[in-house]
Amino acid sequence: MHEEVRMKVLVLMGSANDAQKLQPAIDTLAQFGVEHEWWAASAHRNPAKVAELVSGARDNGFGVVIAAAGMAAHLAGVCASKTTLPVIGVPVASGALNGADALHSTVQMPPGMPVATVAIDGAKNAALLAIQILAVTDDDLRKKLEADRASWEPKKLA
Amino acid sequence: MHEEVRMKVLVLMGSANDAQKLQPAIDTLAQFGVEHEWWAASAHRNPAKVAELVSGARDNGFGVVIAAAGMAAHLAGVCASKTTLPVIGVPVASGALNGADALHSTVQMPPGMPVATVAIDGAKNAALLAIQILAVTDDDLRKKLEADRASWEPKKLA
Amino acid sequence: MHEEVRMKVLVLMGSANDAQKLQPAIDTLAQFGVEHEWWAASAHRNPAKVAELVSGARDNGFGVVIAAAGMAAHLAGVCASKTTLPVIGVPVASGALNGADALHSTVQMPPGMPVATVAIDGAKNAALLAIQILAVTDDDLRKKLEADRASWEPKKLA
Amino acid sequence: MHEEVRMKVLVLMGSANDAQKLQPAIDTLAQFGVEHEWWAASAHRNPAKVAELVSGARDNGFGVVIAAAGMAAHLAGVCASKTTLPVIGVPVASGALNGADALHSTVQMPPGMPVATVAIDGAKNAALLAIQILAVTDDDLRKKLEADRASWEPKKLA
Amino acid sequence: MHEEVRMKVLVLMGSANDAQKLQPAIDTLAQFGVEHEWWAASAHRNPAKVAELVSGARDNGFGVVIAAAGMAAHLAGVCASKTTLPVIGVPVASGALNGADALHSTVQMPPGMPVATVAIDGAKNAALLAIQILAVTDDDLRKKLEADRASWEPKKLA
Amino acid sequence: MHEEVRMKVLVLMGSANDAQKLQPAIDTLAQFGVEHEWWAASAHRNPAKVAELVSGARDNGFGVVIAAAGMAAHLAGVCASKTTLPVIGVPVASGALNGADALHSTVQMPPGMPVATVAIDGAKNAALLAIQILAVTDDDLRKKLEADRASWEPKKLA
Amino acid sequence: MHEEVRMKVLVLMGSANDAQKLQPAIDTLAQFGVEHEWWAASAHRNPAKVAELVSGARDNGFGVVIAAAGMAAHLAGVCASKTTLPVIGVPVASGALNGADALHSTVQMPPGMPVATVAIDGAKNAALLAIQILAVTDDDLRKKLEADRASWEPKKLA
Amino acid sequence: MHEEVRMKVLVLMGSANDAQKLQPAIDTLAQFGVEHEWWAASAHRNPAKVAELVSGARDNGFGVVIAAAGMAAHLAGVCASKTTLPVIGVPVASGALNGADALHSTVQMPPGMPVATVAIDGAKNAALLAIQILAVTDDDLRKKLEADRASWEPKKLA
Repeated sequence: MHEEVRMKVLVLMGSANDAQKLQPAIDTLAQFGVEHEWWAASAHRNPAKVAELVSGARDNGFGVVIAAAGMAAHLAGVCASKTTLPVIGVPVASGALNGADALHSTVQMPPGMPVATVAIDGAKNAALLAIQILAVTDDDLRKKLEADRASWEPKKLA
Repeated sequence: MHEEVRMKVLVLMGSANDAQKLQPAIDTLAQFGVEHEWWAASAHRNPAKVAELVSGARDNGFGVVIAAAGMAAHLAGVCASKTTLPVIGVPVASGALNGADALHSTVQMPPGMPVATVAIDGAKNAALLAIQILAVTDDDLRKKLEADRASWEPKKLA
Repeated sequence: MHEEVRMKVLVLMGSANDAQKLQPAIDTLAQFGVEHEWWAASAHRNPAKVAELVSGARDNGFGVVIAAAGMAAHLAGVCASKTTLPVIGVPVASGALNGADALHSTVQMPPGMPVATVAIDGAKNAALLAIQILAVTDDDLRKKLEADRASWEPKKLA
Repeated sequence: MHEEVRMKVLVLMGSANDAQKLQPAIDTLAQFGVEHEWWAASAHRNPAKVAELVSGARDNGFGVVIAAAGMAAHLAGVCASKTTLPVIGVPVASGALNGADALHSTVQMPPGMPVATVAIDGAKNAALLAIQILAVTDDDLRKKLEADRASWEPKKLA
Repeated sequence: MHEEVRMKVLVLMGSANDAQKLQPAIDTLAQFGVEHEWWAASAHRNPAKVAELVSGARDNGFGVVIAAAGMAAHLAGVCASKTTLPVIGVPVASGALNGADALHSTVQMPPGMPVATVAIDGAKNAALLAIQILAVTDDDLRKKLEADRASWEPKKLA
Repeated sequence: MHEEVRMKVLVLMGSANDAQKLQPAIDTLAQFGVEHEWWAASAHRNPAKVAELVSGARDNGFGVVIAAAGMAAHLAGVCASKTTLPVIGVPVASGALNGADALHSTVQMPPGMPVATVAIDGAKNAALLAIQILAVTDDDLRKKLEADRASWEPKKLA
Repeated sequence: MHEEVRMKVLVLMGSANDAQKLQPAIDTLAQFGVEHEWWAASAHRNPAKVAELVSGARDNGFGVVIAAAGMAAHLAGVCASKTTLPVIGVPVASGALNGADALHSTVQMPPGMPVATVAIDGAKNAALLAIQILAVTDDDLRKKLEADRASWEPKKLA
Repeated sequence: MHEEVRMKVLVLMGSANDAQKLQPAIDTLAQFGVEHEWWAASAHRNPAKVAELVSGARDNGFGVVIAAAGMAAHLAGVCASKTTLPVIGVPVASGALNGADALHSTVQMPPGMPVATVAIDGAKNAALLAIQILAVTDDDLRKKLEADRASWEPKKLA
């Protein structure tokens, strides 16, 4: 597969306040040469925009959706209801419960509508998971993933 | 106000499996003479129907929406994004976390989009809260609420 | 309905220490032109004052009560027992459990006595919910709510 | 001190449904020869009766109050606000959270208004604690407590 | 793409005791015509077998790994360390904590090694997510997913 | 009763590091004129000293024991096993779980051995509860408690 | 080392009610030919017996102590304070919190006094851990542990 | 036993970022004259190194393994699957759940594969437990443990 036709990743987050928390996802996608769009669009405040972006995602060349939100994090579930593309959910730690609420709201999806949930504030892993999904049929990405892992070294401290 | 023009209550639940859990809400609305519609419609599986029912609710004579769901319970929040009517959320106990997840998913709404959350499996209180909201401007309902309370008696057991 | 006869909102909090946490509620009520009274009065330390304020609320022109408290937050429940007006509870994050205790103490009301609970520290949403309740029969408020929502814009970040 | 003038224990519970859960408290008080009254009276549904019973308790010969309730268990705290007698709270396991909510609502009282909380469903310990409190100045009760403990035997099983 | 060359799904579970909990995943894969292998192999008791199955998965025609385990559920994480294929984790409810432990052990993977976690006991969603991943580049599967969704109907109950 | 013969309160804490957290208890006892001894003595590191202090407490003029500890807080329970005086437990917030562990370790005592538990870090309430216990038979203390409560005033903020 | 001089394991549990939960530990010790004594003795009700058994354990030929208890499980910690032998704690699921309290009370020991905690109701693992500890210097036990592991087989289910 | 032939302790941690949290273990081992090796090696990123270190540990003169990790802490369990030496797990507080996840992932091991878990961030206790295990057959270490305990003094504060 030629890199230029690789599928893109659509990254949504519920609030522009969380931009810094998502930055590692954006950086990782860039590092692996995966094209992406990044939007702040709330499931509750901007439902029309979310629906437009996500329901058209496959036709617009996206292969995976990443959705990040905090508190009663409905964004990933709402995205999942608008597409049959895999949706990766990132629970964001914010507010008094520090992400325990967002984890429940993201991962506990009822039968029929999965969200692929990563750790609370797990933006980097969300990007890596998106890349793994694209790499199922993209050998170039697979090799980059393997090269990345080969660089991890144990250290003797004492 | 004449009873026949009293506003109605729209009751939604995410899954028909939860019907028994919502029955106390329906019974209470009936007991107080409040007209209602009751739908099983999922935020994720039937988003179009949910949007249609809720966004038209005010114009169709509804004054309050009650939304009940379990696990990653997004239904109440999705309803809230479709109307400026007050939305009452009932977290339903189901699955391994027995409603702790549904409570978080319902009550922890971000600023700008409130859900009036009652207790886990608190269907009866959801109906009473809806009646209280209608009773703000409906003296007949207010009197029924007061009569109901006057009937509660303490008991000496020993 | 003329704005000058709009019903008022009674705001109570359990401790004057939490004033800053409630400020967004006060600001939001002011922004929407909703008259209010704001008291620091504890369910445990000032039960007589709480009873006096809440049981007379309807006759004094209030349509909704907002009650905010932390830890074993009994204030909203105690208010609910003194009026048939809708009572909105705001669990306040304070002490070692950071609001998880206040959430349980506010939302898990037994059948017969609902409290409309919003998120932990959800003061702004408490005010918006109060406004939604008043807007059930107040078209001017409804229009302000709709205008407020129309101002929320999604943003493309990358 | 003569047993016949020993102070009594006032036992309240929020709902008659919990009677079986409180029975061990009643049995233990009887076993130690401590007179008691037992009422089902809710903090929310019967606030006037609760206030009457508790605020008059000291003058009516009671030395301790035991208050048991489930879910958003406000009863013990409400009792504490009506008397300077020690109030023992028993969180009752009921509803979806099985007493975790009642524990928080009972034990996390704010500074100034203590509740002496025992384990979830700890009715027997509530009675023993009440007896210990009376036994501070009642030698006959103290001896009974010591005799009770002396009867506990370890066992070799293998 | 011809169905006969569609990539397969490798399903692992930590204990044969959990077979019934995984059955919905197997049924769903079969319903969508996705070939699969299903093994009971523990991360702790059979690490060599797990390593052999997972590290050879891509070369043996698998496109996704599903790993289900309870309690300190390490299986999905161990699988993730043996392949760059996407690994879907299913936390299984078992033991005293009923899956809350398995959820934490599955989803909270450190940066660099994602696990796509679904709900506790979310076997059906694990299969649907695997199918969504394969359907990124398999139009026949995509159409089946869309047909499945189209069959979900809301119901008016009252 | 003459103040000079009033029973004393024995205050133990598991670690000298927690001294600041207990200071409000000491201050409150002093404010009410209740004599006390204050020791740092661990249930695990100084079991002999704890046993000596607590088993001799009644004979040495103490009427109540207050025991404060963090994490796996065994101190109050160990004290309870050494005396039939009422033992008040203060769970201290420390370590990663911030007192949730100490609350469980203090309050969940098995039948037969109660600990009167107050809120996490509830040092002031522990002292007030001790004073309430002594005030059951000490009219002077009772009057001071009532005077203290009479000084609490609600405030109108807006 | 000759088997007949192998060190023994002392098994304590807080309540005879939990005997069935500990049986797997007893069975496992027997299966590996490890001599043991098994006592029901509570940290709170039988502190003298616990102290006698544990402080004399090393001199009486024991190499490890296993202590199992539920709710505010203090037994393992109290044992740890009486010996420098390793103490293994088994949190037992009982009461409303189903072992979450016992886990906290057993594992969260403060610095200086460790308890080697196994899973809630992890009786079998407690025995295996005791055997591993004895096997550090007992080659016969080590071989039995290795043989036991070699018998675990993965299974292909479909 | 001569100190110079005493068995060593192998200390592993999942990430070099946690070095400061493990330092008390290293310091305690040094204080007791116990030789050790200390490695940063992740169960997920460096599985081959972990396997090599742990499976060869017994032959290389180690008697105990200490494994510390945060979040979905699989390291101790993975170590346990590679050796029949006792493995001590230290859940490290990191990320949004502050160690509650690591505690579950470390302690809730399924039957057959124990991990001796200490408190969250309980590095010092991990070292003391390792020393207690070695001291089962090492009288010199036992005496040092006893001397250490004898130095703990209670303090009278007021």
